[in-house]
Amino acid sequence: MTALHSTAPRTGVDVLDRCRALVRPALAEAVGRLHPRLGEMAGYAFGWCEVGGGPAAGSGGKGVRQALAVLGAEAVGGHARAGSTAAVAVELVHVFSLLHDDIMDGDASRRGRPTVWAAYGTGPAVLAGDALFALAVETLAAVPDGGGAVRLLSAALGDLVRGQADDLLFAGRPWTGPERVRPAEYRAMAERKTGALLGCAAALGARLGGAPPATVAALDRAGRDLGIAFQIVDDVLGVWGDPAVTGKPVHGDLRERKKTLPVLVALEAPGAHHLAALLESGRRPDAAAAWIEAAGGRSGALDEARRRIARAEAALGALPLRAGPAGELKALLDFLVGRDL
Amino acid sequence: MTALHSTAPRTGVDVLDRCRALVRPALAEAVGRLHPRLGEMAGYAFGWCEVGGGPAAGSGGKGVRQALAVLGAEAVGGHARAGSTAAVAVELVHVFSLLHDDIMDGDASRRGRPTVWAAYGTGPAVLAGDALFALAVETLAAVPDGGGAVRLLSAALGDLVRGQADDLLFAGRPWTGPERVRPAEYRAMAERKTGALLGCAAALGARLGGAPPATVAALDRAGRDLGIAFQIVDDVLGVWGDPAVTGKPVHGDLRERKKTLPVLVALEAPGAHHLAALLESGRRPDAAAAWIEAAGGRSGALDEARRRIARAEAALGALPLRAGPAGELKALLDFLVGRDL
Repeated sequence: MTALHSTAPRTGVDVLDRCRALVRPALAEAVGRLHPRLGEMAGYAFGWCEVGGGPAAGSGGKGVRQALAVLGAEAVGGHARAGSTAAVAVELVHVFSLLHDDIMDGDASRRGRPTVWAAYGTGPAVLAGDALFALAVETLAAVPDGGGAVRLLSAALGDLVRGQADDLLFAGRPWTGPERVRPAEYRAMAERKTGALLGCAAALGARLGGAPPATVAALDRAGRDLGIAFQIVDDVLGVWGDPAVTGKPVHGDLRERKKTLPVLVALEAPGAHHLAALLESGRRPDAAAAWIEAAGGRSGALDEARRRIARAEAALGALPLRAGPAGELKALLDFLVGRDL
Repeated sequence: MTALHSTAPRTGVDVLDRCRALVRPALAEAVGRLHPRLGEMAGYAFGWCEVGGGPAAGSGGKGVRQALAVLGAEAVGGHARAGSTAAVAVELVHVFSLLHDDIMDGDASRRGRPTVWAAYGTGPAVLAGDALFALAVETLAAVPDGGGAVRLLSAALGDLVRGQADDLLFAGRPWTGPERVRPAEYRAMAERKTGALLGCAAALGARLGGAPPATVAALDRAGRDLGIAFQIVDDVLGVWGDPAVTGKPVHGDLRERKKTLPVLVALEAPGAHHLAALLESGRRPDAAAAWIEAAGGRSGALDEARRRIARAEAALGALPLRAGPAGELKALLDFLVGRDL
């Protein structure tokens, strides 16, 4: 019983562990309703098993979205079950989007293992994604007054798809000139692609937990800001991150010619044509990284991330939330982005 | 005004034309909310435009599902708008499933044109399918009391995915022995893959049109029976159909070693091992077709289709439906399967 009454602040890792453990039974029950072959693929994607169904050697994702859903419900005094239902829905949508995005991006590995399409084939991975998507909708539609909850989820789904479409199209656009990708466009893409589902997670938890519309909307907004910050930190790590920590090659995003925020901010500075030539050649990513840093790309991106986190924290601070879960939300924000800023 | 007061029975083609014209504005409005690039892909899939957005040379599908939704609403005295909303949702789901199924099945052409993945690439086709799926859910979630409507749709979505998974797995199973695919399994697959969305179309139209649950359930069941019959007729045409009419090679489904109902029924008759060897070799599809016919595969399959249609017609006859739309439903059934039985 000690843990329940403990007032020691939890770390972000503790929060994620607690929420994953809380949601796991409901998530496993939902996945268990899938066609057995698709259920195995889902279990593989969640990091629960290997190909063939044997016990997992690796681990799954952090479970950020399910934690936001649980904390969203708890913070407004909702029942544990409300948080769990919201968590199942957003986690299913998240894994659906990973499965399909890995196909679109041609990524053959994720967290040190083959991606689902690489392990099971493209067709089965498309179908397993569709099954997870359908299951997410079914999960929410089954709750009383599920209409409003499905509206929140379907808005996030629309944003997710639109953000992915923007991101795919960014690759084909020039580095400079009037057709270039502006930082503002990038922020809008990141909000849709990463922020919408984080916002939906917290908002859905709160809504199913019985919160009034204003609280639901404020949590949605805070989650979107967190998502943008999260994406920017990921972008910065993709250029300057330590390969031993990120598990990705040094300057990886520059080698892949990705149009991330540090790059786009630097391209707005004088001398963009020189940087563009360097990026386009794909050679000397170290020189490109140094140029981007000197042009203010790194600091500009991190400033933006800090502003977003400050805004999210201010929004949470202004809401009438229960102290315990609100503290855990803060710990989660610090863990996800704060430590890198 | 004559047309409105005409009592002349409409043909199935007239019914399909009328419903497509009725639904088109709402469907175009929904598709117009997509990311422009995805909207063009959707328009191409609907047969509205060619690659690049130019006017369409060919035509789209018949629009069976949207017609069932419109007639479901009209038959219970619902508002035209109810039928239109239901029609938009089911048609979006149908095209989503075509896009993804064509990827899974590796089909490069449909109705004489390249499939969406063949024309635009696999990744974009996956994303466009996801966008249509999300739009369908959003469309229903937006109506008052959308929760129940979304429940109907998500149940059909779950069936659709499960039916596709079953169908993909059938290909890897043996022709004979205890692991063979039984006719009953095939019927369950066809009900999920083809019947569920036809049933959902009629049921959703009726539900949004204000029908009581028993009527909604009966229309769902009738649509499912129609779907199974429709699939079986397609199977029979896939073996014995005239290539000039079907647009497919003679004995096409036998060449592709498809496990369709006529084949599975024949494999339950004596001498299955001989037929299995003939099918496995892929040579002499004409001999295999003759064997299947002699073993009762063709007649057995058509008997099943006739039973399903009779059941659907009896169910419709027992419901308190408005005469005009009920007559059109009957004309539609005749057009879709009756003429081939």
